[in-house]
Amino acid sequence: MGMTPGEARRRFRAGERVPTAGWCPGWTQANLLAVPRDRAYDVLLFAQRNPQACPVLDVGEPGAVRTEIFDGDLRTDLPAYVVYEHGAAVAEVTDATGFWREDLVAFLFGCSFTFEDALIRAGVPVRHIEAGTNVPMYRTSVPCVPAGALSGPLVVSMRPVPASLVATAVRVTSRYPMVHGAPVHVGEPREIGVSDLTMPDFGDPVEVRPGEIPLFWACGVTPQAAVLAGGVEFAIGHAPGHMAITDARDSRFLVP
Amino acid sequence: MGMTPGEARRRFRAGERVPTAGWCPGWTQANLLAVPRDRAYDVLLFAQRNPQACPVLDVGEPGAVRTEIFDGDLRTDLPAYVVYEHGAAVAEVTDATGFWREDLVAFLFGCSFTFEDALIRAGVPVRHIEAGTNVPMYRTSVPCVPAGALSGPLVVSMRPVPASLVATAVRVTSRYPMVHGAPVHVGEPREIGVSDLTMPDFGDPVEVRPGEIPLFWACGVTPQAAVLAGGVEFAIGHAPGHMAITDARDSRFLVP
Repeated sequence: MGMTPGEARRRFRAGERVPTAGWCPGWTQANLLAVPRDRAYDVLLFAQRNPQACPVLDVGEPGAVRTEIFDGDLRTDLPAYVVYEHGAAVAEVTDATGFWREDLVAFLFGCSFTFEDALIRAGVPVRHIEAGTNVPMYRTSVPCVPAGALSGPLVVSMRPVPASLVATAVRVTSRYPMVHGAPVHVGEPREIGVSDLTMPDFGDPVEVRPGEIPLFWACGVTPQAAVLAGGVEFAIGHAPGHMAITDARDSRFLVP
Repeated sequence: MGMTPGEARRRFRAGERVPTAGWCPGWTQANLLAVPRDRAYDVLLFAQRNPQACPVLDVGEPGAVRTEIFDGDLRTDLPAYVVYEHGAAVAEVTDATGFWREDLVAFLFGCSFTFEDALIRAGVPVRHIEAGTNVPMYRTSVPCVPAGALSGPLVVSMRPVPASLVATAVRVTSRYPMVHGAPVHVGEPREIGVSDLTMPDFGDPVEVRPGEIPLFWACGVTPQAAVLAGGVEFAIGHAPGHMAITDARDSRFLVP
C-alpha cells in the first residue's frame, strides 16, 4: 500500500469503495464534515469544546472543494460519503458531487489511523489492520459539550492491546494530540455505555483475545453524530472509516 | 502576590490598573477579545489558522460576561481594556461596561505569563518580573494567515535569556502549547522586522545583558492587531499585559 495520496484519491474518484486503514502509511488521514456557512461557527465551536474528538486540521473557504492539506476534490476523492438532512442520514454515496452546495464549509478533523503506523512501529499490534477490516467504532453514553445546533454522544474507536503493551500504546498515542491523542478509556466498556464489543455502531468487529484490554480513543465520527442528534439542516461527512487521505505528513502532527 | 484570582479581580474591579505579570502564580492568565456574534467565526477561524498566537482557552456564549474558566465579570474584572471601532482604537478604559454589547462573544486566549512561573522554577530569570514592569511586545513583519475580516502581523513578547539557559527555556515552554508554547524566534530580531528592542510597541522595554539572547514568543495581542489591521467594526480587548486572571490552574495546560 505504498501509494501516494494522489494515487489513492484517483482510485476512490474512479469508484473504489474501501476502508482506508493502512493506506498510504506516513500520510495523514482525516475526517470530513461539510456544513453550510451559517453552521460553520457551530462546528468550530463544537470542536473547540470537544478537542479530543474534533481536532481541527484544516478548514476550507465556503464552497471550496480542496483545502491547504488536501490537494484533491473533496466531493469525489473519498471512498464514500454520508449525506445528512435535518438530523437524518439520507444517502450514502461514493461521489458527493450531486449533493455539494456552494455555501458548504469543509472541516477536516484528525483521525486515529494516523498513529496506527507509529503503534505498529512500537510493536503494538493493530488488529483491524491485520484483519484487513474497518476499525470498530461505538457511540458512547458520554455526552459532548454542545455548541449551537450541535450536540450528541462521544463516538470512540476501539483497538484491543495486550496488557503488557497498554502503557506503550498510551505513550505513543499521547504524542499525537491532533489525531485524538491518548485513549479516553481503557477497559471496562460498560462504563462508557458500550455493552457489546461485537456489535460496533460503525465499522467491523474485531477479536479481543485473552490477555488483551480494549482501548478506546475519541473518534472523528463524533461531529457527525452531533450533526445527527442536533438535527442540523444539511451536512456531508465521510462514511466512517472511509477517510480523506491528505497531503500532510503524519510527522507534522507529532509532539516532540 | 499569593492572592486568589477572585481577590485580584476584585482589586481590578475597584479600579486598580497594573500589568498582571507575576500575579496569582499557578493560575492561568488569558488574553481577551470580544467581538460581535457575526464576527465570531472569523475570530475562531483566525485562531485555528494561527494557533501559536491564538490558542483558544475558552469561548463565551453571545452576551455572556463570564465563561467556564472565568468566574468573574469580563466587563470590569481586568485591569484595563482597549475598545476598537472600524479598525481604530477609540478608548482605553478600566471598566468596559459602557461599551459592552448584548451580541458580543468573548474569546479567552492563552498567555505566556502562564509559563513564566515554570521558567523561574527551572532557573530561567524573567527580567520584566524582576523589574516589576510589563513584558515588552513587538509587532513583527511576519504576517498571520488571514481569516475573514481578520488579518495582520504576528505580535511577539520578548524575554532575554542567558545563552546557557536558552535550551532550558525552549524545553520548558514547549510543554505549554496552549499558552504559545516554544519561542517562534531566537535571536536576530531584525529577521522578524524588530529593529529596536528598546522601543516595544506595547509594554515596557527590558535590559538585554551581555551574554543574553532575546527569545520571542507568539503573543495573544495578535488577534487585536488583526482586528485593527482588518478594520473590524467593533471589538473589546484587554490592554496588552493587563490580563484576565482565570480560575483555571496552569497545570491544566501542561503537556505531560
